[in-house]
Amino acid sequence: MNRLTGEGKFVTNLVNPLQQVSQLPIPVGVLGFGGLGQAAAKVLAPKQQIQWVVAADQKGFAVDPSGLDVQRAIATYQTQGSLGYLEPEGTLSTQSIADLIQQSQNVAGFFLALPNLPNTFMASVAQQFIEIGWQGVLIDAIKRTSAVEQLVDLGSQLAAAGITYITGCGATPGLLTAAAALAAQSYAEVHQVKITFGVGIANWDAYRATIREDIAHLPGYDVETARAMTDAEVEALLDKTQGILSLEDMEHADDVILEMAGICGRDRVTVGGVVDTRHPQKPLSTNVQVTGRTFEGKISTHTFTLGDETSMAANVCGPAFGYLKAGILLHQQGLCGLLTSAQVMPQFVS
Amino acid sequence: MNRLTGEGKFVTNLVNPLQQVSQLPIPVGVLGFGGLGQAAAKVLAPKQQIQWVVAADQKGFAVDPSGLDVQRAIATYQTQGSLGYLEPEGTLSTQSIADLIQQSQNVAGFFLALPNLPNTFMASVAQQFIEIGWQGVLIDAIKRTSAVEQLVDLGSQLAAAGITYITGCGATPGLLTAAAALAAQSYAEVHQVKITFGVGIANWDAYRATIREDIAHLPGYDVETARAMTDAEVEALLDKTQGILSLEDMEHADDVILEMAGICGRDRVTVGGVVDTRHPQKPLSTNVQVTGRTFEGKISTHTFTLGDETSMAANVCGPAFGYLKAGILLHQQGLCGLLTSAQVMPQFVS
Repeated sequence: MNRLTGEGKFVTNLVNPLQQVSQLPIPVGVLGFGGLGQAAAKVLAPKQQIQWVVAADQKGFAVDPSGLDVQRAIATYQTQGSLGYLEPEGTLSTQSIADLIQQSQNVAGFFLALPNLPNTFMASVAQQFIEIGWQGVLIDAIKRTSAVEQLVDLGSQLAAAGITYITGCGATPGLLTAAAALAAQSYAEVHQVKITFGVGIANWDAYRATIREDIAHLPGYDVETARAMTDAEVEALLDKTQGILSLEDMEHADDVILEMAGICGRDRVTVGGVVDTRHPQKPLSTNVQVTGRTFEGKISTHTFTLGDETSMAANVCGPAFGYLKAGILLHQQGLCGLLTSAQVMPQFVS
Repeated sequence: MNRLTGEGKFVTNLVNPLQQVSQLPIPVGVLGFGGLGQAAAKVLAPKQQIQWVVAADQKGFAVDPSGLDVQRAIATYQTQGSLGYLEPEGTLSTQSIADLIQQSQNVAGFFLALPNLPNTFMASVAQQFIEIGWQGVLIDAIKRTSAVEQLVDLGSQLAAAGITYITGCGATPGLLTAAAALAAQSYAEVHQVKITFGVGIANWDAYRATIREDIAHLPGYDVETARAMTDAEVEALLDKTQGILSLEDMEHADDVILEMAGICGRDRVTVGGVVDTRHPQKPLSTNVQVTGRTFEGKISTHTFTLGDETSMAANVCGPAFGYLKAGILLHQQGLCGLLTSAQVMPQFVS
């Protein structure tokens, strides 16, 4: 069974093929600089193994190969509306993502911290990376099933382009989906995966795009109508519900991701939750319950529960960079194509 | 950044590099046929993707390329004491493992469901695979830190031999360690990982080696003294404790595995639990708690709790074969060497 002869040679001297990091710190980028992008930059700031060197928002981008300054970047964005105003690292641009990709040949990977509005946006960004000929790792914290399916359709193009793309790398899908994939291992058959999230944010306008994505799941709304809402309209809706968004049976990509990982059919996966847009405390503890039948015929449920003090930002951005590091290690081994958060173990970034 | 040119070519046509399976079903083996090995065979029986074709115990081995019959194998072992008596698949041998490896050139991977007594046993078995020139995937459900360290020392030899070895693939280390590695992603710094297990077994003598490994953790015992105990001595000890073994601060490889994954120092990982050797009900719910500090400075704890109805056998053997499948996919990509359960996502086997 000499399956390794030739092909395997380049790793035969590695003790641990998934723990090699070519050089430290590894340069990475963030696309999008709303609430999620800013949190991502804060998460990156103290890291030794990876370094935040490029970022883009709708109106501009910033590049500093020796590392962008998080505080100054956030202050500039919040006062002037774009990283393009950052001096001297910034550039204003009407095609900020394409321009930044052009300048990112040495960036190992990107966190696409972009709102997926419209629902084809993430796939169109992936397409830009392919067209420009960039090679490296992309991860997203995308939410909708249909958006992940568009990326799956790009799988062979991503592989041919030399891109390792891991989709669904936030909290849900992401951390909770991976926990479900892990929990499933105890069972011969998985009957149900039930994800219930609680999110508390002090001010909804720090996450304007995220809240609109949530509103789009409410009866009577869709992605386009939610996207088109003015801030005043969002405010008026939230006034009617005392700031609470209760979401059931959401179109969430945890279903397709667990189906792709061979764990269960997508119809056995449900996602719902409660978002309180006026209090930082979570209205309930975020958890995933995985029910199945063991080889002995017993029915049981494993439960993974997140600590209430952990914010959405921590549970999205932490895993996201764990997956980015995992992707970089796979990419260094020549593994390209589309993967999901249920197939790869995120690697802790220090 | 043409890091992939050449090296990466062989995967460029794959949509999903970690989901390719060359041929179904994949032939696998089990070494050891005590309680754990028999449970492993039962877990394998209904699987479509992998097939149980070889097994060995202390006194013999059995080979059937078209699939071993689980019921007949267990009946033969229980009545005659060795798989070597299985007709016509069995062979009696005083060097059953070495003999079986010689005949396993087409076996893609093995679950080493062996008692690690003495504490150097698992590493010595790995060494036998290397010496015989076998290539493929090995996984274990080893428990002690010092035993995993011996395997880590073999890392470069395993890589050079074309073997992908994933260590610590049971419940703890294994399922719970991986859950801890996952939970850690929410934190900037991990303060404590606390694993607490509850095991209930109806009759201790179905797991004679496992119970001795547990006794070895009690004050006044070590691996050698526990191994040397007669069944009557074990019985007498359990009589004194009403069948309960309470274990604290155990030498458990979860610590070195999480340290190797860069999650926290091994001193921050504790493992303890209660084993009831006279009742199948668990004396407490097995769980892992991961406490850390988020990037925002909040201290919190994520908790992963196993359903009480899931047995030790389900929580060990299920993950074990999930890791074996993951290892086979990595091995097909040419990734060899030593990995741990905290670095690889187990892949659900259907």
